[in-house]
Amino acid sequence: MNLNFIAIGDEVLRGETREGNGAVLADALVQRGLGLRQMQVIGDDFASIRGHLLALASRPNALVISGGLGPTDDDLTRAAVAAAAGVAIVRNPLAEQAIRDRFAQLGRTMDPSNLRQADLPVGARLLANQHGTAPGFAMQIEQLHVVALPGVPREFGGMLADHLDSWLAALGMTPQPRIEATFRLYGLPESDMQGRLSRLPHYAAATMRSLPTWPEIRLELTARDDSNKFNQLCDEVRADLGRWIYTEQRDQSHASAVLQALRDRGASLAVAESCTGGQVAALLTAEPGASQSFLLGAVTYANSMKTNVLSVPSQLIAQHGAVSEPVVQAMAEGALRVADADFAVATSGVAGPSGGTEQKPVGTLCLGLAWRGGSDARTVQLRQLDRPKFQRSAAFLALEWLRQRVLGLR
Amino acid sequence: MNLNFIAIGDEVLRGETREGNGAVLADALVQRGLGLRQMQVIGDDFASIRGHLLALASRPNALVISGGLGPTDDDLTRAAVAAAAGVAIVRNPLAEQAIRDRFAQLGRTMDPSNLRQADLPVGARLLANQHGTAPGFAMQIEQLHVVALPGVPREFGGMLADHLDSWLAALGMTPQPRIEATFRLYGLPESDMQGRLSRLPHYAAATMRSLPTWPEIRLELTARDDSNKFNQLCDEVRADLGRWIYTEQRDQSHASAVLQALRDRGASLAVAESCTGGQVAALLTAEPGASQSFLLGAVTYANSMKTNVLSVPSQLIAQHGAVSEPVVQAMAEGALRVADADFAVATSGVAGPSGGTEQKPVGTLCLGLAWRGGSDARTVQLRQLDRPKFQRSAAFLALEWLRQRVLGLR
Repeated sequence: MNLNFIAIGDEVLRGETREGNGAVLADALVQRGLGLRQMQVIGDDFASIRGHLLALASRPNALVISGGLGPTDDDLTRAAVAAAAGVAIVRNPLAEQAIRDRFAQLGRTMDPSNLRQADLPVGARLLANQHGTAPGFAMQIEQLHVVALPGVPREFGGMLADHLDSWLAALGMTPQPRIEATFRLYGLPESDMQGRLSRLPHYAAATMRSLPTWPEIRLELTARDDSNKFNQLCDEVRADLGRWIYTEQRDQSHASAVLQALRDRGASLAVAESCTGGQVAALLTAEPGASQSFLLGAVTYANSMKTNVLSVPSQLIAQHGAVSEPVVQAMAEGALRVADADFAVATSGVAGPSGGTEQKPVGTLCLGLAWRGGSDARTVQLRQLDRPKFQRSAAFLALEWLRQRVLGLR
Repeated sequence: MNLNFIAIGDEVLRGETREGNGAVLADALVQRGLGLRQMQVIGDDFASIRGHLLALASRPNALVISGGLGPTDDDLTRAAVAAAAGVAIVRNPLAEQAIRDRFAQLGRTMDPSNLRQADLPVGARLLANQHGTAPGFAMQIEQLHVVALPGVPREFGGMLADHLDSWLAALGMTPQPRIEATFRLYGLPESDMQGRLSRLPHYAAATMRSLPTWPEIRLELTARDDSNKFNQLCDEVRADLGRWIYTEQRDQSHASAVLQALRDRGASLAVAESCTGGQVAALLTAEPGASQSFLLGAVTYANSMKTNVLSVPSQLIAQHGAVSEPVVQAMAEGALRVADADFAVATSGVAGPSGGTEQKPVGTLCLGLAWRGGSDARTVQLRQLDRPKFQRSAAFLALEWLRQRVLGLR
């Protein structure tokens, strides 16, 4: 049986919203050892929805529908499913009660049009929605097993988590017992990673999936059996790619790994930023519990602030320029001193699009690092990155240098 | 003739990458007064690609394909188009030269497999790729007019900009002359905006499209004719929604509008952040030229830093807590003083998920504002937002209060 996905909504075809529920479903299926055959987006059009359903119904197919379950005239999924199945629509009393309860619970008066969301095709099985108003439903049309869920991403994702396993089980698609491992990497281009992986002796012992969220990569390995070979492969990955692996925890971000390294050593951190403009601090403070290690971020954008707040000598800036190793090193030392921190990291660079010179073109990045008893600086050139990518890339480079220093790796 | 979109790639169906080219195409078409009938994602499967092409070829259709043009065995678009058209594949000498030139220009040695990208179906019209290696092509299969472009987003978007208009013109789909206006809003829920718009006297004088990038909304109005009624509608929008409209420039972000308000007055800014952790500074410095107004961001995450860097009295923190109006007001005053700035804005709140109390639950946000001669503070409750949304929401609220104060609106 093939698994299909259809999202319904004119707003996607008009470019007003990006369809993301298909990717959420794809990910959930891969986690269960299953795969999608196709994804589709079609408009709020009765004939088109019914036509797609009938085309799938002539062969064994499973289909997840996203959207078209709301209370307005544009919401046609219920009617199109009923028409494709050749059945009437009736109000489901359980669904009606759930909608009334939800409005009561939120203390809002309910427009009667909302009850249209309780109208289901005869023969449909109600799927409760704990995350919003519109209930979902499961239904069979000839050889097609369809499940319809609301399109609001939070509701779609929540209902998928609630109902996917039991729906798949009813279709006989039980997830296989599997072994899996996750490696999160930073600093290795994806194509280089793929090349290295393909040369590992036990490369074939797992299915590999890489999910890049630039500039990080999450590498997932899964296998159905032979945990011996799988474990050997994992050891090979660690041996060959270890210097770029910052965690084996599936959901740990790079910033979280930096904070953990600090926390494990009881160490505190201050940050001094110029070209990254607050992004290093923002990456760190996006993590709950950052306050255990992170004391201060000084976004000293004006040169006078580098002097006033971080005590960088103004003649040092006049002599070398703000984008220079002496200045960025002094920024790190200043942040360390002001915050009385164990570590400090600093950035200064030319993010562009303007401001570059022949000696210091757009893309020049100076990083500074300070710790109790010493400090250091380095310069890298980040070519062909636009301003947002330069800033993000620079923030990650700063945090990675810090992480390696805290862990004593370099 | 219906316009369709198909993206080809197993990586999307496996949840490794999110398909975004369809949205880019949809947006480009709407800009031209045209619309997509459907979007589809299918795998790297020869029979499936050919089958979809043949299904579309039996009626007048136009199709944009994204992906499957690379040099590997998985790249099947060229072969499937040729098979659907019943023609052979031949190497295109212009395409071959372009690939050789590109590698020479980048100073890289070319693996001969790259030349497979120059193999095009007989009868295909070459579309030059200025943005990467794989050329695109346009081709007719029975009643289907297909254009195939590389799937790499940067290349797809670049080639769309280069070739879309001439391809549409060749199909007789000339963009209509249109009048248009853009309003960017902040602070008004989208459903409220829709309700207000629908009650305007000249509501029907334009097609409206709203593109929410939370927490901002971009509202686009377009019309084919009658600029008189259109202008009346625009005036009605300004009169009814003006307090939430921060710009009528299509590509101006909220942070950019804040910086422009400061720049227009020759005013400088300092920021003091606790709960937003650097996001206010990051939003501002994402804009080129921020340094003309933005002097300093002080991310005083630890209470001692509020005292050390911003001179917030430690007894004020002890008495009222860090999340309080007296403290956040003192933070703003301190930042103003340290940076000798004309304006300063400060944030302190409970971002969660932990750290809430009965008096100050998760979601409590205190904002401070200081200017030469005065200061102010306020508290808002942001309910039911997770940590990332709380931080982003808090950063926008701080910037909006600042913008209104700089413009003298409140």
